[in-house]
Amino acid sequence: MSRSRNIQAVLIDLSGTLHVENQATPGAVEALQRLRATDLKLKFVTNTTKESRRFLFDRLRQLGFKIDLDEIFTSLSAACDLIKREKLKPMLIVDDAALEDFGDVSRFEGKPDSVVVGLAPEKFNRPCLNEALRLLLDGARLIAIHEGRYYKTSSGLSLGPGPFVKLLEYAAGVKATVIGKPNAEFFQAALKSLAILDPHSAVMIGDDVRDDVGGAQQLNMAGYLVRTGKYRVGDELKIEPKPFKIVDNFASAVDNLIDSL
Amino acid sequence: MSRSRNIQAVLIDLSGTLHVENQATPGAVEALQRLRATDLKLKFVTNTTKESRRFLFDRLRQLGFKIDLDEIFTSLSAACDLIKREKLKPMLIVDDAALEDFGDVSRFEGKPDSVVVGLAPEKFNRPCLNEALRLLLDGARLIAIHEGRYYKTSSGLSLGPGPFVKLLEYAAGVKATVIGKPNAEFFQAALKSLAILDPHSAVMIGDDVRDDVGGAQQLNMAGYLVRTGKYRVGDELKIEPKPFKIVDNFASAVDNLIDSL
Repeated sequence: MSRSRNIQAVLIDLSGTLHVENQATPGAVEALQRLRATDLKLKFVTNTTKESRRFLFDRLRQLGFKIDLDEIFTSLSAACDLIKREKLKPMLIVDDAALEDFGDVSRFEGKPDSVVVGLAPEKFNRPCLNEALRLLLDGARLIAIHEGRYYKTSSGLSLGPGPFVKLLEYAAGVKATVIGKPNAEFFQAALKSLAILDPHSAVMIGDDVRDDVGGAQQLNMAGYLVRTGKYRVGDELKIEPKPFKIVDNFASAVDNLIDSL
Repeated sequence: MSRSRNIQAVLIDLSGTLHVENQATPGAVEALQRLRATDLKLKFVTNTTKESRRFLFDRLRQLGFKIDLDEIFTSLSAACDLIKREKLKPMLIVDDAALEDFGDVSRFEGKPDSVVVGLAPEKFNRPCLNEALRLLLDGARLIAIHEGRYYKTSSGLSLGPGPFVKLLEYAAGVKATVIGKPNAEFFQAALKSLAILDPHSAVMIGDDVRDDVGGAQQLNMAGYLVRTGKYRVGDELKIEPKPFKIVDNFASAVDNLIDSL
């Protein structure tokens, strides 16, 4: 890494990068400790929409990661902020586990004026999607917590929320407001929470070549692509410019980063 | 209609135009008889993917329409021709009722090399879509029987196959080969079967502003939009150029057309 970057902050993806399901990636716990021993500022930025911040926090602690709740920045809480700020009455296509972060926004009278799509495997069915279609055709606004294509599960790659957002966009002839990665606003809000104004002085580490690496690099951050989680051979060819670095896993990314300081 | 068009052929949509579910649209049976009394050539062109040609034929006859089996031109049979011509081994996401038209193309050994998406409400579920996603990521070809956005059912508008095609295109980062309306090749093949070489001498009557009217008009045919089936107020504003005529129903379209001859 060029010293001219003067790295001050690191944004780190969670699922697929720090851990895959209920297992930390090799050496990740110790690597995070090494990273904390530097004076770099850290934020954990995640498009996970299925679990609340508290749930993510508890899981990371159980896997041995030293982390604070307010270091976690999620697309779910960003979506919730938007709903409250704009006083929306949303139809929430989000997992029950995520409803904790939404508080009482789902308590309102009358017809929903918006459709919020998260990762809700058990709600991605035709009756629910038809209901959303009809609301959108009647003028409801479409909000995507993120547009991830797919994610890794123990039974193989599974559809993320993005494909269902595209389904609804096409069906109703509308365009979604997207909240999470790879949106510039999302990365900027995370950096702002660290008092970092220049993205050029920040690094993003993640397993999603488009949402993590591509999104960060659009903002002129340096993107590290890890070969864990949803990574598939050839992913690095899918974006332009190419990832700043491609490494085996989070621990390798940390070693490379520390070496370059 | 300008006499300079010298109309020789009429392409007619089925569901939503000649009938809505199990009811003929007002005066449609008699209107078809009046149309047959002219020397215009007729073809019934449909994106219905759920039912076989024989099923469509039987239903139309039961509703009182005078029609021959070989007057029906469907996206399903066009897809089937493609599969046979290119010797594909398809994963068929089509309704069981449609399998009749597919014959033995679903009998093969080994892994599918293509995913064919029709209208299969009971197969539009996550396990099936995840299976399709994995095949596409491994290089299978995506074929869309058509890309209809939604269709009318007794319980309201429901998602058509198009949104599910868009879902898979986005998820796997691929582009589908589309068979049915509004594809130029589909209209051209229908006209060719009537020995009509110049689309300018043909008319299309349908309830889908994009797939019927817009598609036909891209080929320089005259498009009649009927206000039955999936028509919703304002649909006529969704395409450019605007529909050639907007009429209450199929019978009105026929009257207007005959008056203009």
